[in-house]
Amino acid sequence: MQETNDPKLTSWMPVPQGSDFPIQNLPFGIFSTAGTSPRAGVAIGDHILDLSFLSESGYFDQLGLSQRLFDQPVLNEFIGLGRKRAGEVRRRISELLHSDNPELRDSHGMDALVAMSEANMHMPVSVGDYTDFYSSIEHATNIGRMIRDPQNALLPNWKHLPVGYHGRASSIVVSGTEVRRPNGQAKNPDEQVPRFGPSKRLDFELEMAFITSTKTTLGSSISTSNAKDHIFGFVLFNDWSARDLQTWEYQPLGPFLAKNFASSISPWIVTLDALEPFRCDGPVQDVKVLPYLEYSGSRNYDIQLQVGIAPEGGTEDVVCNSNFKYMYWNIAQQLAHHTVNGCNINIGDIYASGTISGPTPDSYGSMFELAWKGTKPVQMSDGTERKWIEDGDTVIMRGWSEKNGVRIGFGEVSGKVLPAH
Amino acid sequence: MQETNDPKLTSWMPVPQGSDFPIQNLPFGIFSTAGTSPRAGVAIGDHILDLSFLSESGYFDQLGLSQRLFDQPVLNEFIGLGRKRAGEVRRRISELLHSDNPELRDSHGMDALVAMSEANMHMPVSVGDYTDFYSSIEHATNIGRMIRDPQNALLPNWKHLPVGYHGRASSIVVSGTEVRRPNGQAKNPDEQVPRFGPSKRLDFELEMAFITSTKTTLGSSISTSNAKDHIFGFVLFNDWSARDLQTWEYQPLGPFLAKNFASSISPWIVTLDALEPFRCDGPVQDVKVLPYLEYSGSRNYDIQLQVGIAPEGGTEDVVCNSNFKYMYWNIAQQLAHHTVNGCNINIGDIYASGTISGPTPDSYGSMFELAWKGTKPVQMSDGTERKWIEDGDTVIMRGWSEKNGVRIGFGEVSGKVLPAH
Repeated sequence: MQETNDPKLTSWMPVPQGSDFPIQNLPFGIFSTAGTSPRAGVAIGDHILDLSFLSESGYFDQLGLSQRLFDQPVLNEFIGLGRKRAGEVRRRISELLHSDNPELRDSHGMDALVAMSEANMHMPVSVGDYTDFYSSIEHATNIGRMIRDPQNALLPNWKHLPVGYHGRASSIVVSGTEVRRPNGQAKNPDEQVPRFGPSKRLDFELEMAFITSTKTTLGSSISTSNAKDHIFGFVLFNDWSARDLQTWEYQPLGPFLAKNFASSISPWIVTLDALEPFRCDGPVQDVKVLPYLEYSGSRNYDIQLQVGIAPEGGTEDVVCNSNFKYMYWNIAQQLAHHTVNGCNINIGDIYASGTISGPTPDSYGSMFELAWKGTKPVQMSDGTERKWIEDGDTVIMRGWSEKNGVRIGFGEVSGKVLPAH
Repeated sequence: MQETNDPKLTSWMPVPQGSDFPIQNLPFGIFSTAGTSPRAGVAIGDHILDLSFLSESGYFDQLGLSQRLFDQPVLNEFIGLGRKRAGEVRRRISELLHSDNPELRDSHGMDALVAMSEANMHMPVSVGDYTDFYSSIEHATNIGRMIRDPQNALLPNWKHLPVGYHGRASSIVVSGTEVRRPNGQAKNPDEQVPRFGPSKRLDFELEMAFITSTKTTLGSSISTSNAKDHIFGFVLFNDWSARDLQTWEYQPLGPFLAKNFASSISPWIVTLDALEPFRCDGPVQDVKVLPYLEYSGSRNYDIQLQVGIAPEGGTEDVVCNSNFKYMYWNIAQQLAHHTVNGCNINIGDIYASGTISGPTPDSYGSMFELAWKGTKPVQMSDGTERKWIEDGDTVIMRGWSEKNGVRIGFGEVSGKVLPAH
């Protein structure tokens, strides 16, 4: 049998040119169609393969899975099978979709497929805990330059540990969900007292997030070399942020209401297996790390990232082109650090990267950086400019890896901003 | 029918003098006995009333509850009935335990009761999100004095909003669970690079926490006047903290590994209804708050709090006597602030108060304050002293309200510290 990421693999199911979802990808998500319940599916071209239907029809019998595994509104139980067992399912799906395999094609064929245009996508997992890191050195440096000391932009701890904080799991929503501009407190330095009202500095943060596949015991730790066995895959992540609320509230305990009004994720979880060909080296870590943060091999991923803004009724302008490979701290180091004190993880936890900025101004992953604190407004093709995100704007993030003619994409995470209540 | 908190109420079930659990309390928890599954119970004296047994035996038939409501390992579904319906259940339990009521006493009687000494207590809820506030002005002032500017101990935002941050839900454990001293990075100002190893400054934080009973929609808010309709009750909360890890990691995004290795809660959730007679005024808020933080009525609670430390094999010394009434920001303000930006809440979320310190040195709610950053070691009766918590120490927190001969107690939250791995 061919490897699931063999560039020569083709499917009997047509995959449009430039699709994010060739047979080498096979990401998992939760979908429904009119009048049906949310259930598990896999993206192939512009269709969704209905895993619940496949399971009921006996196509997974050889794998000994629970009958109800895919007929559920979240993927947690499936993900919790672990990377090896979930990989077997993915290989079986690859086999069923293979051009030369008549097994599914000639019996149920299109009965097992749903057009994406007819489906609604849902949150793919029930989120346990959500952590947000701060692992792009360009981003941390930019922020430090703007709000602290340009000569000492990075704080002393930054190159010694992957800084992170806990975020709000309840307000993570799937792509397409409209996002309400938050109300809150803000105070400019020249004001005596804080004002209350809609945030005037609404921002996005271009991030990616990994989703864990294991439940560990409190008191245990995960090493950098074992980290991948605890990770199912990645999604795109928009960490919506209200900068004016954040400035006023964040000392001394970190961001709170400036972040927890909404975070958006892309609906398809792209597996580590699908991304394997795109592993690459990360930036050189020029400060020696403690032994528990040492790692071997290529632990970054070459994933191109893009942010677009579409004004109400207008066309989209791409405002940022970045890449996940810029991350200074990799996911193995993030997970090792998170658990080195014995903190336990659960199936379905979300661990976001922090804003992913690159070295050039057009690769900065937030409006805060792109418009440099409002001093360099971003010019839009409709003649308007943006310092921050405006009501009616839709923010769209995309991600994809490409090599040997194979494109492993994430689809998109998009969200339209509604006026504050 | 008598009110459930009528001081004259007595039960046919004997309640030992000084018990935390008279018939006026009736807190809910999850217990099991050898060979049985975790299920819901109510504390009465030194026994547990088995709600699963009562339900199966038909004692709740008139309330139209799901048969499986109490035969579950968490209380979320029960709590999610809402304050009114859950209050009906509690009133029915009060009725069944009433001295004059032969209904349960003369039929099943002791069959429905389990001795606490024969039961194991479990986490009472599956925790959605966990938030920790910082609402004691004495605590925030003490910390500010010790680590920042003694002349400007409180940060500018402190009196304008209840500062809070998101914590880790996965590592919240029930009383009695042993707590492993965390490993982590720390760096003294005189050191060039951080060291890795067991925390040398392990601390407790005396807190209380409320548990929410509703699931709200993203984008909606809860007013101070409606807050109580979203809260089921309270537990004691020990927010274990590693001060040396915290000092090194917490800038700029707040506490992370210094807190997420463990937090401990007491097993019995004391309802708002049981605490109603103990409502009291809070400290005067001498800085005018924004309208969404205004409230009417008495929103604090007079709950006496105590912390003891029992060295390995030794006897316990009480090191702190505090009171929940010292909280500057009350729970209605906390919940209104948390949701004013549209952040949604879930059934079973935990919202902790932050360390509850009082005005006198013997009422400070952490070793950090009690031993004043290590400069005033706490003398123990065995001749040793404590700057921080040592391996083998058990930290025990208790809480109770008392009036008209009725004591509404929380039992305790205790945890023994094990040496680091």
